[in-house]
Amino acid sequence: MTTFLLLNGPNLNRLGLREPGVYGKVTLEQVEQRISMLADAEGIELVAKQSNHEGELIDAIHQAAQQQWDGIIFNPAAYTHTSYALRDAILSVDIPVIELHISNVHAREAFRHHSVISSVTIGQIVGFGVFGYELAFQAMIEHLKGEN
Amino acid sequence: MTTFLLLNGPNLNRLGLREPGVYGKVTLEQVEQRISMLADAEGIELVAKQSNHEGELIDAIHQAAQQQWDGIIFNPAAYTHTSYALRDAILSVDIPVIELHISNVHAREAFRHHSVISSVTIGQIVGFGVFGYELAFQAMIEHLKGEN
Amino acid sequence: MTTFLLLNGPNLNRLGLREPGVYGKVTLEQVEQRISMLADAEGIELVAKQSNHEGELIDAIHQAAQQQWDGIIFNPAAYTHTSYALRDAILSVDIPVIELHISNVHAREAFRHHSVISSVTIGQIVGFGVFGYELAFQAMIEHLKGEN
Amino acid sequence: MTTFLLLNGPNLNRLGLREPGVYGKVTLEQVEQRISMLADAEGIELVAKQSNHEGELIDAIHQAAQQQWDGIIFNPAAYTHTSYALRDAILSVDIPVIELHISNVHAREAFRHHSVISSVTIGQIVGFGVFGYELAFQAMIEHLKGEN
Amino acid sequence: MTTFLLLNGPNLNRLGLREPGVYGKVTLEQVEQRISMLADAEGIELVAKQSNHEGELIDAIHQAAQQQWDGIIFNPAAYTHTSYALRDAILSVDIPVIELHISNVHAREAFRHHSVISSVTIGQIVGFGVFGYELAFQAMIEHLKGEN
Amino acid sequence: MTTFLLLNGPNLNRLGLREPGVYGKVTLEQVEQRISMLADAEGIELVAKQSNHEGELIDAIHQAAQQQWDGIIFNPAAYTHTSYALRDAILSVDIPVIELHISNVHAREAFRHHSVISSVTIGQIVGFGVFGYELAFQAMIEHLKGEN
Amino acid sequence: MTTFLLLNGPNLNRLGLREPGVYGKVTLEQVEQRISMLADAEGIELVAKQSNHEGELIDAIHQAAQQQWDGIIFNPAAYTHTSYALRDAILSVDIPVIELHISNVHAREAFRHHSVISSVTIGQIVGFGVFGYELAFQAMIEHLKGEN
Amino acid sequence: MTTFLLLNGPNLNRLGLREPGVYGKVTLEQVEQRISMLADAEGIELVAKQSNHEGELIDAIHQAAQQQWDGIIFNPAAYTHTSYALRDAILSVDIPVIELHISNVHAREAFRHHSVISSVTIGQIVGFGVFGYELAFQAMIEHLKGEN
Amino acid sequence: MTTFLLLNGPNLNRLGLREPGVYGKVTLEQVEQRISMLADAEGIELVAKQSNHEGELIDAIHQAAQQQWDGIIFNPAAYTHTSYALRDAILSVDIPVIELHISNVHAREAFRHHSVISSVTIGQIVGFGVFGYELAFQAMIEHLKGEN
Amino acid sequence: MTTFLLLNGPNLNRLGLREPGVYGKVTLEQVEQRISMLADAEGIELVAKQSNHEGELIDAIHQAAQQQWDGIIFNPAAYTHTSYALRDAILSVDIPVIELHISNVHAREAFRHHSVISSVTIGQIVGFGVFGYELAFQAMIEHLKGEN
Amino acid sequence: MTTFLLLNGPNLNRLGLREPGVYGKVTLEQVEQRISMLADAEGIELVAKQSNHEGELIDAIHQAAQQQWDGIIFNPAAYTHTSYALRDAILSVDIPVIELHISNVHAREAFRHHSVISSVTIGQIVGFGVFGYELAFQAMIEHLKGEN
Amino acid sequence: MTTFLLLNGPNLNRLGLREPGVYGKVTLEQVEQRISMLADAEGIELVAKQSNHEGELIDAIHQAAQQQWDGIIFNPAAYTHTSYALRDAILSVDIPVIELHISNVHAREAFRHHSVISSVTIGQIVGFGVFGYELAFQAMIEHLKGEN
Repeated sequence: MTTFLLLNGPNLNRLGLREPGVYGKVTLEQVEQRISMLADAEGIELVAKQSNHEGELIDAIHQAAQQQWDGIIFNPAAYTHTSYALRDAILSVDIPVIELHISNVHAREAFRHHSVISSVTIGQIVGFGVFGYELAFQAMIEHLKGEN
Repeated sequence: MTTFLLLNGPNLNRLGLREPGVYGKVTLEQVEQRISMLADAEGIELVAKQSNHEGELIDAIHQAAQQQWDGIIFNPAAYTHTSYALRDAILSVDIPVIELHISNVHAREAFRHHSVISSVTIGQIVGFGVFGYELAFQAMIEHLKGEN
Repeated sequence: MTTFLLLNGPNLNRLGLREPGVYGKVTLEQVEQRISMLADAEGIELVAKQSNHEGELIDAIHQAAQQQWDGIIFNPAAYTHTSYALRDAILSVDIPVIELHISNVHAREAFRHHSVISSVTIGQIVGFGVFGYELAFQAMIEHLKGEN
Repeated sequence: MTTFLLLNGPNLNRLGLREPGVYGKVTLEQVEQRISMLADAEGIELVAKQSNHEGELIDAIHQAAQQQWDGIIFNPAAYTHTSYALRDAILSVDIPVIELHISNVHAREAFRHHSVISSVTIGQIVGFGVFGYELAFQAMIEHLKGEN
Repeated sequence: MTTFLLLNGPNLNRLGLREPGVYGKVTLEQVEQRISMLADAEGIELVAKQSNHEGELIDAIHQAAQQQWDGIIFNPAAYTHTSYALRDAILSVDIPVIELHISNVHAREAFRHHSVISSVTIGQIVGFGVFGYELAFQAMIEHLKGEN
Repeated sequence: MTTFLLLNGPNLNRLGLREPGVYGKVTLEQVEQRISMLADAEGIELVAKQSNHEGELIDAIHQAAQQQWDGIIFNPAAYTHTSYALRDAILSVDIPVIELHISNVHAREAFRHHSVISSVTIGQIVGFGVFGYELAFQAMIEHLKGEN
Repeated sequence: MTTFLLLNGPNLNRLGLREPGVYGKVTLEQVEQRISMLADAEGIELVAKQSNHEGELIDAIHQAAQQQWDGIIFNPAAYTHTSYALRDAILSVDIPVIELHISNVHAREAFRHHSVISSVTIGQIVGFGVFGYELAFQAMIEHLKGEN
Repeated sequence: MTTFLLLNGPNLNRLGLREPGVYGKVTLEQVEQRISMLADAEGIELVAKQSNHEGELIDAIHQAAQQQWDGIIFNPAAYTHTSYALRDAILSVDIPVIELHISNVHAREAFRHHSVISSVTIGQIVGFGVFGYELAFQAMIEHLKGEN
Repeated sequence: MTTFLLLNGPNLNRLGLREPGVYGKVTLEQVEQRISMLADAEGIELVAKQSNHEGELIDAIHQAAQQQWDGIIFNPAAYTHTSYALRDAILSVDIPVIELHISNVHAREAFRHHSVISSVTIGQIVGFGVFGYELAFQAMIEHLKGEN
Repeated sequence: MTTFLLLNGPNLNRLGLREPGVYGKVTLEQVEQRISMLADAEGIELVAKQSNHEGELIDAIHQAAQQQWDGIIFNPAAYTHTSYALRDAILSVDIPVIELHISNVHAREAFRHHSVISSVTIGQIVGFGVFGYELAFQAMIEHLKGEN
Repeated sequence: MTTFLLLNGPNLNRLGLREPGVYGKVTLEQVEQRISMLADAEGIELVAKQSNHEGELIDAIHQAAQQQWDGIIFNPAAYTHTSYALRDAILSVDIPVIELHISNVHAREAFRHHSVISSVTIGQIVGFGVFGYELAFQAMIEHLKGEN
Repeated sequence: MTTFLLLNGPNLNRLGLREPGVYGKVTLEQVEQRISMLADAEGIELVAKQSNHEGELIDAIHQAAQQQWDGIIFNPAAYTHTSYALRDAILSVDIPVIELHISNVHAREAFRHHSVISSVTIGQIVGFGVFGYELAFQAMIEHLKGEN
């Protein structure tokens, strides 16, 4: 069976509660339910995790490799800009990763314009709110078709 | 009637012919036909243009405003990194723009990592090959729903 | 007869329509008429051009040299910050150029703070709205007096 | 009655004596007389000051606020490039300020290309010799019309 | 008797009048009275000075050394970011200095993020409005206890 | 009841043991007791936490929001200079935060001069040793008065 | 038959007229005739183009690919320093390009020291006046020998 | 008894599995066994730990101090380049640390060229594959001889 | 009669009192007396001034021009690194200036390595303590010989 | 008689042996013979030298001046990027110098993109393999014609 | 027979005499004897050279290639930071090189933190005093095992 | 007996011949004779050396230490800006060094503004032509008095 990991980084547990002007009012739980439903329709298993701990995000990526999952949809949030350890974690597994940001990070503070992770992912979806998770889900399916 | 402008910048007329390892083998004409077909299905009119001339791309954006079109899907190609004139053209019209890159520009030369246009668009889709145009098309439809 | 070229760069055809909070509500046509009227009063011929194409702006500067016109009032708009080709065009002719910006570019985005053109002009007028064109007109007349 | 402050910074007492190739041969006294004459014709009072002391220039700007004067024409000379204190002085009063430079500072040493003051003024007039003071005078009158 | 110098730099004479959204509505005179009152209660003499002149601030620091005063509470305002002369003045005397800023300078323009003075003071109090002067007063008393 | 979170970051569990020349000989436990005592006197509840884990510090800030606590006194230690995740955590809650450093970080290594957190706090207290915690406690009380 | 494209960028139509101290007195027409003559002698067809329009230069490079021409001698003039679009045009065709500058750009303004095009050409000839076109012509012939 | 801590950072649990072209095929377990064996021969106790969590690595360094261990051989992996918290942890204990990298980080991506940790260690061993652990072990023994 | 101005900048009134490890124990008065004595022996008049006020130093340089003095020996102290106004003052007079620093500024903090004044002086004498004033005096005499 | 110095810098004695993918298989001896032959045909004497020692290269340039040779064809190899001493050597003689690089240095490591020597030569020939020496030889002959 | 070159750069002839606090008291002769002894025990020939001349160090590396020696242990000393010529010398031979520094260069002046040589060596040993030469010797033996 | 080394770097053998507008017409031989004469008068032995070879300059500094000479007057010429090896040579001996430049390097190209040697010398004399050697001679004598 095909399995995707939906992985969300620091402070995304506050989604819907936090700065609604920037991130909208939908909660992370609702996002995970929406993508699960789409996955069900495609016969894909979805594993969803969120952590504020850089180490736990690394562990989750390693686990995906051990479980031989097929793709990772990853919103690294603030770790995007500094975490070479997450970058190395992606390099240490052989699974395609799509990077996603809810807000248009390029229209915000300068530190958000640079990602240390983008160059080891297959692509990025940025600025489309929580709908971006649906786009990323479709992009991953399309990508795996190309692989096979 | 809803109308989208599909606007492609310099050297994209060489798509399919040019560096297939980077950009794939699909031609620009095939991309435009594919998105036209999707648009037909949604009852949307699609206007497709490509130019190697910065000035013509600016003119096209102005035309979109004069014609009161509803959205622009824009691959600015190499002008992404330097054209403040295209940036100002987007600011001079009141139409949502989605920025799209076929290859993962963040995994290529350093000059391709910076876009002077991203901050005036609603979002970016990067690295998913020509399938990115389909994602952008969906994202634009979703965006307009949110507007209404 | 004395002839001045009034040359406006990219997106200035949108003047009055575009971001009125920044650029005001007067259109480019009204500006050109106002300066033409002032020129008539001084017995000066005014040639007015606008283009979104960098190449056409270069061509216009060359034409001024071929026609032996006497001065250029130039708002290079977004090309101000990157166009070494326009800079070289000014160097390639022997005509005084005054640089003009409608808004106070130094109070806007950082990329607007640097001009590659200023050092080859005789002076700059920045931030006085469309009234700046009148000041530039007077400054050019005064400059030519000094030349003679 | 409308009152303008004509404020000149360090070394401008040497105008006419100092580097005539750069600054011309007109003295500061002559400039002040010329602008006074123009002011008289408009029914405007002109107060003219020059100081080599950063602190005295700040005091003068404060005094303008206490006296409720209407506009400041300011040539900050070498303090242009470093004086955040003068910048803060302008921010601490509610009077429009026009920045003026006699020579084309953008065609001189690199340190003269950056002004810490421009972003808190309404506009700049640069490079037109002492005639720039006349342009600034007109620009201030025009600006106040727009205010009323 | 223990004596403290309360030293305020450029534009702080405009406190309460200037940008109340940033600096509040309390005047400098009221601040000086409040700290004088606190000093009286502790049997400490307070000398309060303000100047817009960098040279006078240096003179005041030298005077503190000549008078053998015990501590300096110093708000260098805009000179914070550029005045190596004030930095050297502090190094030239053997008196503890506390640096204070009324607003949170780190949440304002980039040039306000860097202080050339901090490294020669014992500490900084930043962002607590005029209450910061009370905190600085207490911190100085505590510091002197540690010295004895 | 009013509740404050006293939050200390990495290596502060070594306070009193670690580099006494820089940080003094008082232990973290003693600091927490001292501030608890002051809080008791004011009828305020103090919750004290320390962690070397960035994720746990983020969790603690989120918990403060869930518990509706009133203020956070935060010494982010070495995470000050790099943790955009902690910055985002502060932005994701609606609680005032005061940043505190025991030593004068501006007189130490260059990397300690920059804080990615300062701009989202209300103020900073730097360099007064462990007495800084008392000053921060008073500043928070004063700040809340201003809020009400 | 072997065909070379001799392509000249912005302002080179002013060659001989423009800044003779820098560029000499030979006109572009004379250069084109000289190289045509050399080409005739070698049985090579020479196509010569000049444009001030970046887009037309891109079009010309594409045309060379469509016509299956054998080599391009290219003086990109001021576009050398900024045009990633011309760089991408060269990458989009499979034709060797030699970059040429008439003056010694490394002995002129700093912005002329960097070329965004050099790394996708086979070599550069810089500073030998219009004789450089003859050297480039020979170098291209030699290069094609190596290819065969 | 002499005790060494062998401490490995993020993603090193993937050693042997991860990018064998860069890191080789030996697993971390095999490395730890090899160094344990060498330690046994020298009558030294070896404690081996690996963690993907920055906080746990800090805790381990603190534990070494509490247990009064004698030396730390540390491969900080991706935390090398950003973790001031690990740097401070080393400063907070009085134990010699040797920094080790398996691959030649100076021949890889630019971000791997800078270590924030090197200046607080006694030395570095870089690029010798897993044999580097043996060299580090010998270097630590030699270093302790010099201490006694 | 030949006249020299011996001009000393901020904090040099504290010479001998201030940081004797850096600046020595000789006072400014003693330095001025020593150079006066040397001047007398050469039949030269020496005018000595010191000020902490940038504006007064500028005034003094202007006065030298008005009095037609022959040379200036100038220790600009901390204004060395930032005062473009002093630089312009030197440019505004036609008198040779020798720059002098008592300590070896290149072996101190980085900000002391750059002088904005050196390029408009004839030479610099750095690091020889107060004996540097004697060297500067001799160098000025030698320089004037070369002038005549 | 006309004499040219053919001067080759460090590691060029390894030409043909060293990295043939970059530099080709022709040896330096063969290059020197080829250019000698061309020189003979033109009645020009060719002196060829190679050294790995910066000092010997400087000595050779001085010798050319003492012998009154007419031109220098110089491949400074790795000294290109750092040797201000070679730059000064060229400035210290009155002989035209042509700079040559065998490989296209602009398509290699970043440090090879900058030459400290280019601005004091008459021109550069870069990237044409050892054929570049022939081009340089011709360019020098042409240059001397222009001189006479 | 296996032969190693032990190559030491500038000022290392002063080892033991120079800055003993940084480099220790052992002389270079003693180091060379110690490594010779270790080499004898392994049946390896050791050739030891030291030079202050960059050119002689390059010559020595070339000689190693001509003699077909097997490995180079190299302490480039101050040339580490600037010598692209030594870097190219290493690239021009096919012999493994180990880079060694006696002191922990990363804990010293900033200019010592960057090596232009590291990326063309197999690894580095830094900070272990003269014992580092023994570690490098072992690492070279181990490396050659891996090669075979 | 007291002995001074007068050491001159690259291209100074061309003094008097080279760029007389910058360096004057006096030859190095004349300079050495002049300083020898002054030395004789003081009973000091002067050893004069010049070399274009960095390595020979290092050797000369080492020799000065071996011979126990008392001071070095050093004009490092172009090596001033890059030679960390000369810097280390000075650090490796216990002899005072005075740095000297004939021209005012701060008024020339930017690369001449930075010296890597100044911070390890006792002082610098810059811009006084060859008379600077006399000033340096006096400064060394004065310095040695202070030492004794």
